[in-house]
Amino acid sequence: MTVTYSSKVANATFFGFHRLLLKWRGSIYKLLYREFIVFAVFYTAISLVYRLLLTGAQKRYFEKLSIYCDRYAEQIPVTFVLGFYVTLVVNRWWNQFVNLPWPDRLMFLISSSVHGSDEHGRLLRRTLMRYVNLTSLLIFRSVSTAVYKRFPTMDHVVEAGFMTADERKLFDHLKSPHLKYWVPFIWFGNLAAKARKEGRIRDSVDLQSLMTEMNRYRSWCSLLFGYDWVGIPLVYTQVVTLAVYTFFFACLIGRQFLDPTKGYAGHDLDLYIPIFTLLQFFFYAGWLKVAEQLINPFGEDDDDFETNWCIDRNLQIRKELQLGYLLQALAQFLSY
Amino acid sequence: MTVTYSSKVANATFFGFHRLLLKWRGSIYKLLYREFIVFAVFYTAISLVYRLLLTGAQKRYFEKLSIYCDRYAEQIPVTFVLGFYVTLVVNRWWNQFVNLPWPDRLMFLISSSVHGSDEHGRLLRRTLMRYVNLTSLLIFRSVSTAVYKRFPTMDHVVEAGFMTADERKLFDHLKSPHLKYWVPFIWFGNLAAKARKEGRIRDSVDLQSLMTEMNRYRSWCSLLFGYDWVGIPLVYTQVVTLAVYTFFFACLIGRQFLDPTKGYAGHDLDLYIPIFTLLQFFFYAGWLKVAEQLINPFGEDDDDFETNWCIDRNLQIRKELQLGYLLQALAQFLSY
Amino acid sequence: MTVTYSSKVANATFFGFHRLLLKWRGSIYKLLYREFIVFAVFYTAISLVYRLLLTGAQKRYFEKLSIYCDRYAEQIPVTFVLGFYVTLVVNRWWNQFVNLPWPDRLMFLISSSVHGSDEHGRLLRRTLMRYVNLTSLLIFRSVSTAVYKRFPTMDHVVEAGFMTADERKLFDHLKSPHLKYWVPFIWFGNLAAKARKEGRIRDSVDLQSLMTEMNRYRSWCSLLFGYDWVGIPLVYTQVVTLAVYTFFFACLIGRQFLDPTKGYAGHDLDLYIPIFTLLQFFFYAGWLKVAEQLINPFGEDDDDFETNWCIDRNLQIRKELQLGYLLQALAQFLSY
Amino acid sequence: MTVTYSSKVANATFFGFHRLLLKWRGSIYKLLYREFIVFAVFYTAISLVYRLLLTGAQKRYFEKLSIYCDRYAEQIPVTFVLGFYVTLVVNRWWNQFVNLPWPDRLMFLISSSVHGSDEHGRLLRRTLMRYVNLTSLLIFRSVSTAVYKRFPTMDHVVEAGFMTADERKLFDHLKSPHLKYWVPFIWFGNLAAKARKEGRIRDSVDLQSLMTEMNRYRSWCSLLFGYDWVGIPLVYTQVVTLAVYTFFFACLIGRQFLDPTKGYAGHDLDLYIPIFTLLQFFFYAGWLKVAEQLINPFGEDDDDFETNWCIDRNLQIRKELQLGYLLQALAQFLSY
Amino acid sequence: MTVTYSSKVANATFFGFHRLLLKWRGSIYKLLYREFIVFAVFYTAISLVYRLLLTGAQKRYFEKLSIYCDRYAEQIPVTFVLGFYVTLVVNRWWNQFVNLPWPDRLMFLISSSVHGSDEHGRLLRRTLMRYVNLTSLLIFRSVSTAVYKRFPTMDHVVEAGFMTADERKLFDHLKSPHLKYWVPFIWFGNLAAKARKEGRIRDSVDLQSLMTEMNRYRSWCSLLFGYDWVGIPLVYTQVVTLAVYTFFFACLIGRQFLDPTKGYAGHDLDLYIPIFTLLQFFFYAGWLKVAEQLINPFGEDDDDFETNWCIDRNLQIRKELQLGYLLQALAQFLSY
Repeated sequence: MTVTYSSKVANATFFGFHRLLLKWRGSIYKLLYREFIVFAVFYTAISLVYRLLLTGAQKRYFEKLSIYCDRYAEQIPVTFVLGFYVTLVVNRWWNQFVNLPWPDRLMFLISSSVHGSDEHGRLLRRTLMRYVNLTSLLIFRSVSTAVYKRFPTMDHVVEAGFMTADERKLFDHLKSPHLKYWVPFIWFGNLAAKARKEGRIRDSVDLQSLMTEMNRYRSWCSLLFGYDWVGIPLVYTQVVTLAVYTFFFACLIGRQFLDPTKGYAGHDLDLYIPIFTLLQFFFYAGWLKVAEQLINPFGEDDDDFETNWCIDRNLQIRKELQLGYLLQALAQFLSY
Repeated sequence: MTVTYSSKVANATFFGFHRLLLKWRGSIYKLLYREFIVFAVFYTAISLVYRLLLTGAQKRYFEKLSIYCDRYAEQIPVTFVLGFYVTLVVNRWWNQFVNLPWPDRLMFLISSSVHGSDEHGRLLRRTLMRYVNLTSLLIFRSVSTAVYKRFPTMDHVVEAGFMTADERKLFDHLKSPHLKYWVPFIWFGNLAAKARKEGRIRDSVDLQSLMTEMNRYRSWCSLLFGYDWVGIPLVYTQVVTLAVYTFFFACLIGRQFLDPTKGYAGHDLDLYIPIFTLLQFFFYAGWLKVAEQLINPFGEDDDDFETNWCIDRNLQIRKELQLGYLLQALAQFLSY
Repeated sequence: MTVTYSSKVANATFFGFHRLLLKWRGSIYKLLYREFIVFAVFYTAISLVYRLLLTGAQKRYFEKLSIYCDRYAEQIPVTFVLGFYVTLVVNRWWNQFVNLPWPDRLMFLISSSVHGSDEHGRLLRRTLMRYVNLTSLLIFRSVSTAVYKRFPTMDHVVEAGFMTADERKLFDHLKSPHLKYWVPFIWFGNLAAKARKEGRIRDSVDLQSLMTEMNRYRSWCSLLFGYDWVGIPLVYTQVVTLAVYTFFFACLIGRQFLDPTKGYAGHDLDLYIPIFTLLQFFFYAGWLKVAEQLINPFGEDDDDFETNWCIDRNLQIRKELQLGYLLQALAQFLSY
Repeated sequence: MTVTYSSKVANATFFGFHRLLLKWRGSIYKLLYREFIVFAVFYTAISLVYRLLLTGAQKRYFEKLSIYCDRYAEQIPVTFVLGFYVTLVVNRWWNQFVNLPWPDRLMFLISSSVHGSDEHGRLLRRTLMRYVNLTSLLIFRSVSTAVYKRFPTMDHVVEAGFMTADERKLFDHLKSPHLKYWVPFIWFGNLAAKARKEGRIRDSVDLQSLMTEMNRYRSWCSLLFGYDWVGIPLVYTQVVTLAVYTFFFACLIGRQFLDPTKGYAGHDLDLYIPIFTLLQFFFYAGWLKVAEQLINPFGEDDDDFETNWCIDRNLQIRKELQLGYLLQALAQFLSY
Repeated sequence: MTVTYSSKVANATFFGFHRLLLKWRGSIYKLLYREFIVFAVFYTAISLVYRLLLTGAQKRYFEKLSIYCDRYAEQIPVTFVLGFYVTLVVNRWWNQFVNLPWPDRLMFLISSSVHGSDEHGRLLRRTLMRYVNLTSLLIFRSVSTAVYKRFPTMDHVVEAGFMTADERKLFDHLKSPHLKYWVPFIWFGNLAAKARKEGRIRDSVDLQSLMTEMNRYRSWCSLLFGYDWVGIPLVYTQVVTLAVYTFFFACLIGRQFLDPTKGYAGHDLDLYIPIFTLLQFFFYAGWLKVAEQLINPFGEDDDDFETNWCIDRNLQIRKELQLGYLLQALAQFLSY
């Protein structure tokens, strides 16, 4: 579930963000503690070997190696690479959120443009909405792990009432190597055209308005699919990951406290715990984690989009549409 | 209330921005003076301990520690991290402003598309506008602390005239774990469809035009809600905050004036007041405060959006619509 | 008036941009010469004090101070802060330009959708256009210093023919603490609805097309107003200004030429004129001036938008619309 | 084929990205191994010459040269230049993806707006869809190497059923030095106008809706063409390439391990294998490869868009439209 | 003419971009060789003076000056300033390309919405298209040097058939200090309204669709005009140019090879040819050239937009519209 903390930072107060540092859910600590332990263990191991096992000459060699590593660790442009990369990932992530398909707009149009308060009219409206929800479900199944787990086969989709058995036969009948999420839209279009012919959609203006909205919905769906299908080029992700991992590898050796008595520049002090290196680990690994979390926002991370929630909401709205319609008729009687 | 200063900088003049440095409301000083005092107190405390309490050997050790801290303070990429992060926050903030729902467009359409100068016609127009305002109120309540304080319960909403008692019953009747801000839009759609049937909206073109505008309004509302619901990932905010706090922690020790007689590089001078470190505190903490202020623009900061103002304005416009309509009829008589 | 120089750089030629360095109007020199003189005077004064007034021990102390200042001057992240800030300002500035309300689109629609070549038809078209111009004038008055100076009171607006006396009474009658720029749009909408009823606007398609365009125009106006009302948070501007001013303050002391005979690192040479520091002053102060000029593009700077020009142009287009309409009728006779 | 790895990173897990480091297809290793070998060979060669062939004086000279090269290698702003350049390339690449012409929207509109279940009606719909597909094929042929290989001449286009022989004659008849991808759209427009006249498209609303959609499709096509025609200015690409190549050239000499006994600063250690330089090669050359891969996404790289796949999909959708239409009629019988 | 090289980089191959380094047209070498020669001559001259003319004391002074210049050359933030500035220029450049007015969309609409296969109908369609082309020509004349050279006076415009003599009189009759590119659009609107009245445009839907498209076209035109009129503020361009020029000026002195026997740090080697400085010249001056080329894309650079080509293309499309229309009628006969 998305971690919402905006109400905690509504006002800029005294050391306002420090409260955020103490959260656990969705936090940097929860995401990083395992990596942090690994890093600390390795650092300690190397430190112990250096202090206890190495002989004098070996120590001298290690010290040179450490200084060498430290010098190059500073040359690795982690900050930059991460800055540009994370900006890219965050933009893609937000665009995916903005393009989540919400059926509300279509629902309003269906409820006001498709007429008839008899059973047939209600069935018509309900079927149209069902097609809309079916499409988004098909898309969500293909992009989201969570939804896929909930609806592993088409049987589950039929069972949940998104599809009738007849429709399923039709759907399966279309052999295609490609994803078939657009099929319900053909059904939608044909059904709407039929409703227009029967006079339940009054004129072309209403129909085209419905089709336009449906096309917009389809665009959202296909954009989601596109984001899933064509990710950030693997090479870019690898370059960034390599840079960060190399940096930490270099730090393991290069940030050891060397014997202060040897007088190496910047090694006057033996603190045992490399506090700033550990903090740097948090910055950079945390920054990379931001990318890792957002690169596929349809997983099951703390900060991922709640696609199952969306599906439930859409379903409920569909049901309440039926209910609300009746009650509303009543209400409008009363208020006039 | 938003701090507007653009008229003060209309022309680029002699040291044009310096006047801005002397403002208090919404200024960096007002936002930061408490943090600044805390920082200064800690710095002074450490300085006094070093100068007065420590023995010779302890001083030597502290000096080494200070140099160590200073060296790493410079390695923390505060500038970069803040640059990328603040850019992200500022973009989100501005997008939220641009997507504040203004009912003007809908109002114009209602006033010119929904006909009838009798009481029923007026009631129709007023009810439609009320639904529009109600939706934005529901959204504002959920995102803005200030509005929530003003309308803590639905009773307050009904009292303020945004909702009738009957509508409220209907509204409460819809049990939903999700926010129900979209409900008035269903009412709106149904009422508009009814008006179309009664001939008060002349044809489908007018109706669809109204529905399109309403859908745009709904999109603004849901986008606001989205911005509130899915914030910048907590990890990112924590990374930035950690970087800045660590930097200042390192500065507390690393920027102490060491005994000039010891001949440490860059420590030839004891100024007592670390003027540049204090200025750096203002830059970086101020930059972070920019983010803190803008990350949730619906709080009660000096620079936050005045949502209550918006609500008042929208209400007034609705009222004047009634008045203006009559006067206008008169005026157009006169001018022809 | 905007400084247009694109024709000067149409082709990339031998040292192509050097010609731009010699312009005066809108140039960095014109904007900065006063600040430059102040900076130079202070630098010289400090230099003279150091060279002539200070005693030996005072000189040594000053030299240490100078080195201290120099070291920190380099740590101030002026480049970065300015880079991010100016990018933000430039984007806002360009968006304001793109959203300047041009009435052309509305004018074309009015001239082709509102029929009737009799006096009443002409009056109708002219009045609609007048309302359009009036709205933009009200907005320009509130955002632009130059326009405000030209139309300091509503009397001036009436005198210039943007508003009739009757309309003004109506306008004043609406008491509102908020800006009333949207009032003429209500008039516009009502007048258009009236024209539709009289059959001078043929059908709903034409009317809605007009209303849509009007709403777009209104959005431009309100966006301009929004840019003026909600500026870049004061804190951000203060942070940037502080950074730049501090940098120059540090340079005043830190970039003094110290006695070369004392052998301070990097102080082997006494050039008297700190050529590179002066150039740096031009870069950074110039960069800040870019922001200063663009942060409110409706002032009276050399590079500000010519809002008065816009108003004149819009007025003239309105007049020529009348003229052109007649001539055009003639022309189309001839060409067929 | 595009390398999709998003499902692998759905959840942020323990060292989540490390799995990506082990992929081969589309990976940095596959793209760079040849360049890497060349670089390693040169480095080794120079190293061997220095160690084995040079005399003492020559060694001293080489050492000075190496230090000189190293110093300047660090001054080359590779990180920055690459950061800005790759951001530009990635943005263009994604925009190209988003603007790939998908015929789905048009297909839905055709299937619901062009009436008639007789043979003529079906032929009409099929011909309209064929024109749509033909346009995208013409564009794809001009921008994509892969598609061009599949359809090297217009004969292949005719053979594949995208064009009739008659149409081809017409097409060839239009002599033009410019690409003629827009011709099928004229045919489309005329055929649609004809269908409107025959009453198979019911009214202007349906027709204009179709034309608007077609124009949107045309805009996608012309935008793709534009991206291909007007690339990133050659100079920019050359500047970046030069910077990277120069950097590696400088590294070849400057990153040699010099004789530790000579006591050059930073040359205390002879590791034989310059591990960090090799890693840097991977970062920078990999980053440049990202640009190289994305600058023309219509080639045959692992990560390029599968335009042939698109064409196949579009074809299949067209066919299934026919089939689905019949089956759908059946299905809707059953479900009511 | 635009330099298209995307087909050369369709696939990421072994040292893929190196081929681009060997192109001449539109290349960095062609753009920079003159500046490069000037720079090299100055560098050599200073070098010769230092080596041959100066006496011992003068040499010592020059050496100090050189070190001083070198130190400050490194402080000039050329990379950053250029990075931000070029990003801005490139964005503007691409937006101008995307907003080039293409008449295709309007042409399709005219050809399908304006009916009548008689001479009068053809004339009508042709005149409407002529007005469209005329507008873009007027805009191109004002922004593009190349087009202005081809059509230096309105006489040339009339001669080329874009305007009739009668229209010209009308056009000249409108006295205006402002650019009159919008005049043909008034003609267009009036002619379309006339066609609607005569029944050649069937209904308001068709007419409004045409007007909307025309307004979009007009927006493109006015945006192009806006980009030309309101450029990047002169101050910004001057700041960047100053930074780059100052940097090279400092390099001329600071990057001289000083006498290695004097033992200055980093001056152990006398290579005579400052290979890295020359390469830096290529990077930075090349980067600036990118800006110089793109800041006005309507000049006659190798990489500028081919506006004359656009005009020719638009003209030809107009002609073929007539031809294609007839042939098309024939073709559709055959295919049914």
